Amino acid sequence: MLHVQRRFCIPLPIVRQATCLLETFPEVISDVSEDPSSVRSFASQRSELRSADISLAVPSFVVWGANTGVGKTLLSAALAHEATAQKVPFLYVKPIQTGFPEDSDAATVAGACGISLQMGRHASEAAGSSSSEASYSGRTGNSGLTDVWLQHAWKLPASPHLAVAAEGRGVTDSQIRAAALHTLGAFAGKHGSGMALIETAGGPASPGPSGTLQCDVWRPLRLPGVLVGDSALGGISTTLAALDCLRHRGYDVPALVLTDNALQNWKYLRERLGSGALVLSLPECPPAPERSKAADSTGVDASLSDWLRAVQPSIRRLREHLQQWHHQRVERLHSLAGKADSMIWWPTTQHGLVERANVQVIDSRSGEHFNALSSDQGGHPCIEQRYDGPASWWTQGVNEDLQPRLHQSIAYSAARYGHVMHPENASEPVVACAEALLGSVGKGWAHRVFFSADGSSAVEIALKMAFRAFMAQHPKQDASRLEVVGIAEGYHGDTLGCMDAVAPSVYNGPRQTPWYKGRGLFLSAPTIAMTDGEWHVFPPDSEEPPSEAYKELFLSEKLPSLEQAFEPGRCKGTLAALYEMMIVQQLQRHELEQRDSSTLAACIIEPILQGANGMRMIDPLFQRILVEACRAKGMMVISDEIFAGLWRLGSASAWERLHIVPDIACYAKLLTGGTMPLAATLATDAVFQAFASSSKVDALLHGHSYSGYPIGCAAAVTALDLLSSPMNPMLCTPERCNKGCSQPCGRLLELWDADQVVQLSVHPKINRVIALGTVLAAEVKPESGQGAGYTATGAKDVVMSLRKTGMYARPLGNVVYLMVTPTTSRQQCAHLVRKLFSALG
Amino acid sequence: MLHVQRRFCIPLPIVRQATCLLETFPEVISDVSEDPSSVRSFASQRSELRSADISLAVPSFVVWGANTGVGKTLLSAALAHEATAQKVPFLYVKPIQTGFPEDSDAATVAGACGISLQMGRHASEAAGSSSSEASYSGRTGNSGLTDVWLQHAWKLPASPHLAVAAEGRGVTDSQIRAAALHTLGAFAGKHGSGMALIETAGGPASPGPSGTLQCDVWRPLRLPGVLVGDSALGGISTTLAALDCLRHRGYDVPALVLTDNALQNWKYLRERLGSGALVLSLPECPPAPERSKAADSTGVDASLSDWLRAVQPSIRRLREHLQQWHHQRVERLHSLAGKADSMIWWPTTQHGLVERANVQVIDSRSGEHFNALSSDQGGHPCIEQRYDGPASWWTQGVNEDLQPRLHQSIAYSAARYGHVMHPENASEPVVACAEALLGSVGKGWAHRVFFSADGSSAVEIALKMAFRAFMAQHPKQDASRLEVVGIAEGYHGDTLGCMDAVAPSVYNGPRQTPWYKGRGLFLSAPTIAMTDGEWHVFPPDSEEPPSEAYKELFLSEKLPSLEQAFEPGRCKGTLAALYEMMIVQQLQRHELEQRDSSTLAACIIEPILQGANGMRMIDPLFQRILVEACRAKGMMVISDEIFAGLWRLGSASAWERLHIVPDIACYAKLLTGGTMPLAATLATDAVFQAFASSSKVDALLHGHSYSGYPIGCAAAVTALDLLSSPMNPMLCTPERCNKGCSQPCGRLLELWDADQVVQLSVHPKINRVIALGTVLAAEVKPESGQGAGYTATGAKDVVMSLRKTGMYARPLGNVVYLMVTPTTSRQQCAHLVRKLFSALG
Repeated sequence: MLHVQRRFCIPLPIVRQATCLLETFPEVISDVSEDPSSVRSFASQRSELRSADISLAVPSFVVWGANTGVGKTLLSAALAHEATAQKVPFLYVKPIQTGFPEDSDAATVAGACGISLQMGRHASEAAGSSSSEASYSGRTGNSGLTDVWLQHAWKLPASPHLAVAAEGRGVTDSQIRAAALHTLGAFAGKHGSGMALIETAGGPASPGPSGTLQCDVWRPLRLPGVLVGDSALGGISTTLAALDCLRHRGYDVPALVLTDNALQNWKYLRERLGSGALVLSLPECPPAPERSKAADSTGVDASLSDWLRAVQPSIRRLREHLQQWHHQRVERLHSLAGKADSMIWWPTTQHGLVERANVQVIDSRSGEHFNALSSDQGGHPCIEQRYDGPASWWTQGVNEDLQPRLHQSIAYSAARYGHVMHPENASEPVVACAEALLGSVGKGWAHRVFFSADGSSAVEIALKMAFRAFMAQHPKQDASRLEVVGIAEGYHGDTLGCMDAVAPSVYNGPRQTPWYKGRGLFLSAPTIAMTDGEWHVFPPDSEEPPSEAYKELFLSEKLPSLEQAFEPGRCKGTLAALYEMMIVQQLQRHELEQRDSSTLAACIIEPILQGANGMRMIDPLFQRILVEACRAKGMMVISDEIFAGLWRLGSASAWERLHIVPDIACYAKLLTGGTMPLAATLATDAVFQAFASSSKVDALLHGHSYSGYPIGCAAAVTALDLLSSPMNPMLCTPERCNKGCSQPCGRLLELWDADQVVQLSVHPKINRVIALGTVLAAEVKPESGQGAGYTATGAKDVVMSLRKTGMYARPLGNVVYLMVTPTTSRQQCAHLVRKLFSALG
Repeated sequence: MLHVQRRFCIPLPIVRQATCLLETFPEVISDVSEDPSSVRSFASQRSELRSADISLAVPSFVVWGANTGVGKTLLSAALAHEATAQKVPFLYVKPIQTGFPEDSDAATVAGACGISLQMGRHASEAAGSSSSEASYSGRTGNSGLTDVWLQHAWKLPASPHLAVAAEGRGVTDSQIRAAALHTLGAFAGKHGSGMALIETAGGPASPGPSGTLQCDVWRPLRLPGVLVGDSALGGISTTLAALDCLRHRGYDVPALVLTDNALQNWKYLRERLGSGALVLSLPECPPAPERSKAADSTGVDASLSDWLRAVQPSIRRLREHLQQWHHQRVERLHSLAGKADSMIWWPTTQHGLVERANVQVIDSRSGEHFNALSSDQGGHPCIEQRYDGPASWWTQGVNEDLQPRLHQSIAYSAARYGHVMHPENASEPVVACAEALLGSVGKGWAHRVFFSADGSSAVEIALKMAFRAFMAQHPKQDASRLEVVGIAEGYHGDTLGCMDAVAPSVYNGPRQTPWYKGRGLFLSAPTIAMTDGEWHVFPPDSEEPPSEAYKELFLSEKLPSLEQAFEPGRCKGTLAALYEMMIVQQLQRHELEQRDSSTLAACIIEPILQGANGMRMIDPLFQRILVEACRAKGMMVISDEIFAGLWRLGSASAWERLHIVPDIACYAKLLTGGTMPLAATLATDAVFQAFASSSKVDALLHGHSYSGYPIGCAAAVTALDLLSSPMNPMLCTPERCNKGCSQPCGRLLELWDADQVVQLSVHPKINRVIALGTVLAAEVKPESGQGAGYTATGAKDVVMSLRKTGMYARPLGNVVYLMVTPTTSRQQCAHLVRKLFSALG
């Protein structure tokens, strides 16, 4: 708004409805909610997958004000005026205007360029009296180089959320962004250079039409900002607080402008900001009442004209600074792929096989999406919004709406604690995190939480716990002979102890891990997948060809739905008997054969889904029987839920879906909601007591400096809270329940559309499909000559096609998978699967 | 300030200088800087060690305003008025007042309670004309239950930093805090209940007298806040931005009050804040001009009186809410020790040996200090500021002044990126972190950075790198025989691979790590320490008693200073020849004895100082000769700098002090400045190329999900920048240099006072001393019957005495150590050593 708003009124120009907006975004415009209650709520204004790119061909900035009435529109007008004078293509967008038509920042800016807005039928009706039109659109006709747009307006001179409440015509956050992006894109396509401004309404934390804060409305685009500071008494504080508000949402603010230097706030601010931003002080513009009396025919009075001319040299410096900053930003982004490829050593990556053009440069994250550097159809650089298909290596927990809560929690705890040392100390987030874990995934069995920083450490700790606890029960055993029982093709981490706890594999051969020694009995396990529209149990891999009768036992297992695989009743079936026989026999044989060298002390499993090994679903019945058999032999049971736990597979813990209770369980990945490393090993009291003595040397001597660090624990407390809240669409609530529950029933709802899963499984290019919790995985049929397993490349073509549809995916051998967050909507999931279909061709 | 300031002027009451302030804080008052240039700078207003506790006997809150003129003083007056009416003891402190005496918030508040401030000689002079007094102090005499204080005032009605610039009488941040704390303490001591308010000036980010933002001035106390919101148009934004500004500095804000409900901003704010805070809307107080005309004899006009009475029920609700919140806070703090002790499994801790009373409850960190729950002399709960003597397990990197920069960087990157996956991707903080590492500790040798999350993983990765690189040079060797050369009593981490790379120890016995197998040759090494005022080299431990001639070789090594130990010239001395002979002989013997089972492929050292093993300093000459001998045999050299690197020992890298160049080096701990886990393994191009092939299975298959996570990398970029800046007092700058350098010379300056170190070494209770970089360690002479090594308890008494002096310390066997940050001042170090002397008795 203008410096002194509502008094300085520019004669209303003629506004013509630009039809291109309606034509290009019919689904956006037609989808406007008329229900004021829905737009006033702060809850999800979930954005659908974005198809529009953010052009980098034209430097684009958002104009923010430290307060209302600090001169945002004056600055916009001055930049527009200067650009027009210099014949620099210029775009001004006012997405949200209240108090219209008396207030019209777009008209003021247009006036400063000597052009007037055209008015169309829709908007004139709306301006006349009550109207239900959601969107007014103006476009200049006077200058080929300057475009001025007003996109949504309301009559009430108040906060947009109140104007919507009073007048209707609600508009969602994603509609606001889509309209602005379209305008930016069209301008960039036409001119390919110049400058674009989006002027916000009020301050950064003022509500938009939906009730979402404007700094959150615009965050998915993460356009850089120009902040108009507050020159009044107290203005240093409001300016710095507004700057914090923007920066702590991940915005860059390369310029700060003050439009009144009476109190010289700029002097302090310039010193404070250092070289981080250009701080520009402009003289005050004469107050509005004098100006409006002398307004000339363009809507700009003589004193404003004088001011615009007076500030022109300073504004030129600002524009050049902004353009230079933008070019440096683009250059920096362009340099990142090469720098990363030449300085970083990526894990599990053969660098020579990575084409530099395929190195993804990520400018930011927004919810489930990356904002990644790309180029538009004209070859100009742009930021493309891509779905993070691997959930950033299986870590991501929250959607766009919930993400700010995680970040707030991180910012608060970083400032409150930094790091404080863990042993023999107590701080709120660490205790709260332990409490939350024991109250959810540890409920009913675990008494202690041991914190570490990554899954490997959590597993090494779990093994040390299990061995000591086993020794406490079997004091005559030789500790050096202790070994584990695991599932063949299991994976528990990359450090030596974790590797020793799995069978030989590509990860632990002599060239990878010379010190590796498989220390256990690793059983082949039956798997479950959908083929040709039906869920089947597949027999374990075996060296000898299985008999027909044996195969028939598996084929005859009826699984009308995947949920059926978890049914406790299955333990009375034929397959259960078979599993028990297989397991007991192998344990006995191992005991006989290894009598002198091995004592099986612990059973360690990845429950249900083996992630690193290509999203293989192990038959839950088999794991349950294995756990029972091992426990009967006195072994400790470790549930490695680093991948499978914390709602990744639909339930808080994976052990509960297996109907087992572990002695020790490990969590990581989703624990911080997908922000930073934190791991936890939970244990029973019996395990803990095995370390008790009067000597420190008997304590569990495994520590690292950041064990139990408060920032990570604070993020985890917030994440656990969000993931177990009704925001999690997999939890049954009365609203979601299709069985008429009147209160939360604990039943798990599937995220993936059952029909789509069936369709995928019958696709000619697909062998098998798994859809469980947040994971959908499809094994691509290998073409002749392609390998299988970790070295397979069958899924690579599909992955590359997916990337072209705005979905970043990575192959796992022959498997292509989509992983969403536990708070992703079903609509989003269905949308993603449609993309997969289109990539399969 | 008042709602409409400078117009509403209360008749100036009589103010009497309270002498208790001068008497109690003579060093505070006498230390006032009169140089306006120094107080205007944003640089270090470093606080000395605090002796004052923050009482929790009385609920104490800071009153913040979302903007200036929003009604902070009105709210304070209303709370004071209500408390007085209810006979609740009440303290009001106005630490900073400008525009005095026309503006006096303290006088307004006093007036609202029906009492008047007493004026003394000092203040009346100051109010009369120019005065150089730094501090005015008023104290009521009228009511035994109500205290009103004004502590520092200036005449200029502007921001305090401008008032100081104009009038002098600068006051440091720590002086402001000390004065307020003293007043709070005295009030709490007298009443033991009631409520206390500290009213700030301007908004949270308004500068204080020193130029520091007020939200930073008060942060070390971390008192909870009451925010007075902004009721004007745009006030939702300024209110929420102010709230972010406070919360993102770690403050709790349990109440938000709006003193004008015309625009009903409170409705939106209440919905937005949820149950996080009480949101209270009060009616507007009639504007000031009307009021002042009718002011009665107490300085309170009838309409203000009416307002105070009208809001009394709401204010009572607010006071009760704040008191309840406070009591819940104290209860929560009190519950933490028990909860932690019963739910958490601390690393390296025998829980049964930890007395619950010794569990430290940490409310927050401020720079190098913990704010910890304690109790005052009267047995009331309080927050005690304690020096973090173990630098939170050797992680801490920055002092109080620099800490906010780390937190800002964390908040920004958390919001911008959250986590984005690492392999084949590039983002700015990750690339910048790699660049910063390669440009500092990797300069001249390293080409690649491999990120992980903890030191153990970094070492496991380093071993994998070293073995593959060795095999590339020795392709006919059997990978399963590869072993390492290390130093006896070395420590490289707790995972199995790290443990296998060290000699048998208390950490890896069969009860701790059943799978442990020492895979190498571990040499005893000579050490260096100061005894009785002189630096000596001590021979390596040996099984046979050494000959006199052998001992004499060590005794004859002259080390006039510790710096001498690092001199390259020592490699020409007798000791060097001896070391070389010892090392070569042992390598040869191992080769002969283990011909069939071992190939020495890598040399792994903790350079200079063995941390986990009781701060033992290994003779650098020995390590240098060891590295040369190993390299001559074709081994890879790994410098494990997780503890010793990044300025912990005074230099950016530890290898540079040894005058060696590694093939692989590991960093962690200080890498993020002491905030969150991040580790990096640096390697040469030759090492990297050993993994190159056309197959993915040859890549280094060691990854974890948060490898290269942007938040940690952003913290690291900021930390590396701060630690290598002139803020680091160990780096020689022209100002610091005592040798007349005109530009930074790269020489390292010692933090610890040489005389103090000598005195410590001659203390009857002390055996040896090490003072190097940020570490000062002293070995306490064991009393008869006490053990030695990890199980020793000799240092425990000293540590417990230190804790009573406001220093949190932890023993390392018989060693007591102090560890500061690389940005700690020499004054602080000297102060800490004095505490150590007093603890030794």
